[in-house]
Amino acid sequence: MTRLLQAWDELVEQSSLLRLIDLHLRGAGQVMFQNNPLTGLLFLLGIFWGAIASGNPAIAVGAVVGLVVATVTAILLQSDEVSLRQGLFGFNGVLVGVAVPTFLVMNPATWFLLVVGAAVSTVAMLAVSQVTKLWGVPALTFPFVLTTWFLMLAAYSFGHLPVRGLGPPALPVPAAAAVSHLEPSAVFLLTAWIKGIAQVFLLNNLVTGVIFIAALLVSSIWAAAFAVAGSIVSVVVALMLGASAADIDAGLYSFSPVLTAIALGSVFFKPSWRVALFALLATVFTVIAQGALDAAVAPAGIPTFTAAFIFITWLFLLPKVNLEPHRHEPLKDGILTGK
Amino acid sequence: MTRLLQAWDELVEQSSLLRLIDLHLRGAGQVMFQNNPLTGLLFLLGIFWGAIASGNPAIAVGAVVGLVVATVTAILLQSDEVSLRQGLFGFNGVLVGVAVPTFLVMNPATWFLLVVGAAVSTVAMLAVSQVTKLWGVPALTFPFVLTTWFLMLAAYSFGHLPVRGLGPPALPVPAAAAVSHLEPSAVFLLTAWIKGIAQVFLLNNLVTGVIFIAALLVSSIWAAAFAVAGSIVSVVVALMLGASAADIDAGLYSFSPVLTAIALGSVFFKPSWRVALFALLATVFTVIAQGALDAAVAPAGIPTFTAAFIFITWLFLLPKVNLEPHRHEPLKDGILTGK
Amino acid sequence: MTRLLQAWDELVEQSSLLRLIDLHLRGAGQVMFQNNPLTGLLFLLGIFWGAIASGNPAIAVGAVVGLVVATVTAILLQSDEVSLRQGLFGFNGVLVGVAVPTFLVMNPATWFLLVVGAAVSTVAMLAVSQVTKLWGVPALTFPFVLTTWFLMLAAYSFGHLPVRGLGPPALPVPAAAAVSHLEPSAVFLLTAWIKGIAQVFLLNNLVTGVIFIAALLVSSIWAAAFAVAGSIVSVVVALMLGASAADIDAGLYSFSPVLTAIALGSVFFKPSWRVALFALLATVFTVIAQGALDAAVAPAGIPTFTAAFIFITWLFLLPKVNLEPHRHEPLKDGILTGK
Repeated sequence: MTRLLQAWDELVEQSSLLRLIDLHLRGAGQVMFQNNPLTGLLFLLGIFWGAIASGNPAIAVGAVVGLVVATVTAILLQSDEVSLRQGLFGFNGVLVGVAVPTFLVMNPATWFLLVVGAAVSTVAMLAVSQVTKLWGVPALTFPFVLTTWFLMLAAYSFGHLPVRGLGPPALPVPAAAAVSHLEPSAVFLLTAWIKGIAQVFLLNNLVTGVIFIAALLVSSIWAAAFAVAGSIVSVVVALMLGASAADIDAGLYSFSPVLTAIALGSVFFKPSWRVALFALLATVFTVIAQGALDAAVAPAGIPTFTAAFIFITWLFLLPKVNLEPHRHEPLKDGILTGK
Repeated sequence: MTRLLQAWDELVEQSSLLRLIDLHLRGAGQVMFQNNPLTGLLFLLGIFWGAIASGNPAIAVGAVVGLVVATVTAILLQSDEVSLRQGLFGFNGVLVGVAVPTFLVMNPATWFLLVVGAAVSTVAMLAVSQVTKLWGVPALTFPFVLTTWFLMLAAYSFGHLPVRGLGPPALPVPAAAAVSHLEPSAVFLLTAWIKGIAQVFLLNNLVTGVIFIAALLVSSIWAAAFAVAGSIVSVVVALMLGASAADIDAGLYSFSPVLTAIALGSVFFKPSWRVALFALLATVFTVIAQGALDAAVAPAGIPTFTAAFIFITWLFLLPKVNLEPHRHEPLKDGILTGK
Repeated sequence: MTRLLQAWDELVEQSSLLRLIDLHLRGAGQVMFQNNPLTGLLFLLGIFWGAIASGNPAIAVGAVVGLVVATVTAILLQSDEVSLRQGLFGFNGVLVGVAVPTFLVMNPATWFLLVVGAAVSTVAMLAVSQVTKLWGVPALTFPFVLTTWFLMLAAYSFGHLPVRGLGPPALPVPAAAAVSHLEPSAVFLLTAWIKGIAQVFLLNNLVTGVIFIAALLVSSIWAAAFAVAGSIVSVVVALMLGASAADIDAGLYSFSPVLTAIALGSVFFKPSWRVALFALLATVFTVIAQGALDAAVAPAGIPTFTAAFIFITWLFLLPKVNLEPHRHEPLKDGILTGK
C-alpha cells in the first residue's frame, strides 16, 4: 500500500492535473482526518454506493460539486498552499454537498444554495481557524456545520427551497414515556455500529460503512481501530441510557462518537492506555451530547450534523492535558504532581 | 461639503458644548460606519421623519435618549477618548433607543429598561471589543443586538413590559407551501430596495430611506454606492429564493445585506473588482443568513436585528483575505500562489 | 475565627488525608468564590438541611459524590496544584451533583450520568479556562452550566433518564397578561431575599439561606454584605418590572444577581463607592437577563442555572474598567480623561 502511494506521489509531482485531483481526493479523506488520496477515493466510492442505493444520486453529484467548489474557492482566495495540498479546504465542501441533497429537494434554487454554501464553507474554514488557533485547537468540521445550519434554516423562510426529511420543528418531549425500547439482537448490534461509521457522511447504508472502514485501514490501523471501538462504545452507551432503538439502528448515536474516538485516540494524541481512557470518557460524553443536541435543535427543525463531535472534542482538546505515561516516582502527599 | 465640515471642526475645537454635540452626532453616523457629524444629523432627521410618520414619536425620543445615555456612560467609565470622539460608544445606544419603543409599549418600566439597556450597551461595546480585537475584527453592532435581545426576551417574563409587534413565539414552518409569491413590479422593486436602507434603523419608510442615502452620500460616495448595490442584490436574491413578498417589500431582507455590502465593499477593504466580488458573495450569503436567523429566533419570539450582517461580516473579515490585485506573473502549476 | 483557621491549616500540613478533606471543602466554598474550608463545610451543611427538608436526600449524596468525582478527576489529569488546593476543580462538581437529583429521578442510569457529568465538569473547567484566560476573565460556574445543560437536555432523548420538575418545553408567552401580581408584604420580601441566596445551590429553603449567609460571614464580611444587598436589589427590581410573585418568593430572580454582586462588589474589584455603583448596574441587568434567559431556554425545557450571572459578570469584567477613585484634578473639556 505504501509503495502504491509513493508511486502516486511521484506521478502527482509531474502533472498539474493529477496534482489537482490529488488535493481533491485528500480533501475527501480529511473528513475523518486522513491526508491520504486513496482514503478519499474510497470515501467517494462509499458515498456513490450509498447515494445510488438510497435512490438519491444527487447526493453523489453534490459531494463532487461541493468538493470542487470549496477547493477552487480556496485557490481563488490564495489560501495557504500547504493546507490546500493536504485537502484542508475540501472536506467541509464535500459535507455541504452531501447534506443539501439529503435534506432538500434539488431544483435550480437549491443547487444555487449548494454552490454558494460550498464556497462559503471555505471562507468559514479560514474564519473559524483564525479563532480556534488562538485556542490551540483545530476547526474540525465546524465550518461545515455552521454553513449548513444556515442553509437548512433558510428552507423555513424561502419558498423555492422545498424540504425532504428535514424537521418538522417540534418541542422536545421527555423520553421516559415516549421512546420505544428493544432487546438488542447480535445482528442489530453489528449493523448499528457499521452504519454509525457510514453516518459520518449522513448515509444509512451497511456497505458504505464497510467501505469507510476499509478506507481508514489503508491509511491508519489506529484510525480504523478507534473508529470501530468508538462505534461499539456508542451503541452500548445509547442502549444503556435507553435511546430509541430505531435511531441506534440507523447509526444516529454513533457518527459523532466515532469521530471523537478517531480524533482523540489516534490523531491529536499518541495512542496509549491513558489516551484510550481519556478518549473513552470523551466518547461516552459525546453520546450524551448527541442526545442533548437532538433535543436542543428540535424546535428549529434542523439536524445536529457533527456538532456533538465538534463541541466535545474541543472540550477535551482545549485542556491540553499531558497524557504521556506518568514517570515512575513517588507521589507527593498522595497527589500526582503535574510536569 | 468638505469646506462646511472643516468650518464645523474649527468651531468644535473652540467649545466643549459643541464638542459634546459633535461626538453624539458622530455616534449616530457610526451606525453605518460614517465618522461624520452631518451624516449623523441626517440619520437622526430620517429617524424623526420615520417615527412621526408611523405615529410612534417615542422612537425619536428613544433614539436621542439612548444616544446620550450610552455616550455619557462611556464618559463616566473613562473610556478611550479617541474612540469616544469618533462616536464609537454612541451607535449601539441609538439602536437600543430605537428598538425598545418599536417593539414594546412605552411606560415607566419600559423607559427604565431603555435607559439601563443603553448604559449596558456601552459596557457591552467595551466587552465585545476585548474579544473581537483578539480576532482582529471590529465589534460591529453586536453590542446592540446582544443587549436588545436581553431586553426583548425579558418582556416574556415581566408583566410591566407590554409588547407591540414582538413575536408571538412560534415554531418555524417549511416555507415551500406557506409563502405567498408575487410578480414583482418596477415600483415594488424600487420601494423595496429603498426601504431596505431605512430598515437599518428598523423603519419601514420610503422618505427615511432617501434621507439615509443622502446621509451616506455627504460622507462617502463608495458607502452610498455599496449600500444601494447591496440593497438591489438582496431584493434579487430574496425574490430568486422565493421569500415572502410582503417581507421583501418592507425591506426586511435588505437591511443586513446593505450593512454587509458597505462594510466589506467600502470600509474594511479598499474598493476594487476583487473586493466587489468578495463582497457580493458575502451579500448573497447575508440574505440566506437573514432567512435562516428569522427561523432560528422564531421560537423565542424576538427579531434578528442586524445579527445576519454581524455574523456574516465577521465570517468574511476573519480570514483576512488578501484582496489586493494579483500580480501579473505566471501561475505556479495552475494554482495561484498566495503572498 | 482567624485563629481557628490557622490551627486547621497547621493540622492540614501534617496529614495528607486532612489535606484531601481541606481541598474538597474549599471546592464547596468556591461556589461563592470563598477559598475557605469552613465556608465550604457550612455550604455542605446548608445543602444537607435543604435536601432533607425537601424530602430529596439524594441531593446531599449527589453534592458529595459530585465534589469527590470532580476533584479526583482533576488529580488524575495532573491539573495545576495551586488551583487544586484552592478548590477550583471542586465547585462545578458540587453543583452538577446537586442539579441532577433536583431535576431527574435517580436510578442507575441517572447516577451514571451524574458521575460522568462531574468528571466532565473538570475537563470543562480546564477547557473553558483556556478560552477565558485569553479574555482575562475567570471561568466562573460556566463549566457547571455547560455540562449540566447537556445532562438535562439528554433526558429528552434517553428513556432511562426520567425527569422530575424539568420543563416541560414550551414557547414563551408575553408576560403582560399572564403573570399574577401581588402586593408584597414585609414577610414576603424577607423570605424572598434569603431564599434567593439558598437558590445559588438550587434550594428553596429559608434555613439553608441563613446558613449560607453565615458561611459567607466567616470568610468575608464584604462577600456577605454584597450577597445580601444583591438579593434585596434583585427582589426590588423584579417587583418593579412585574415578575411572577411565586418566582420572586422562591428566590428564582435572586440567585444570579447575588453571585453578580459578590463577584463584582467584593471579589474582582476592591469595594468602593464607584465599584458599588458599577456592581449595582450589573446586578440590575442580571435580573433583566434572568427573565430573558428564562424565556430563551423555555422551548428547550431546561433551567437557566447560573447563566445570567455568568454572562453578565463576564460582560462587566471584560472591559477591565478602571474603578479606582478618580484623581482630583480638573476635567479636560468637560470630559473625564482615562489613565
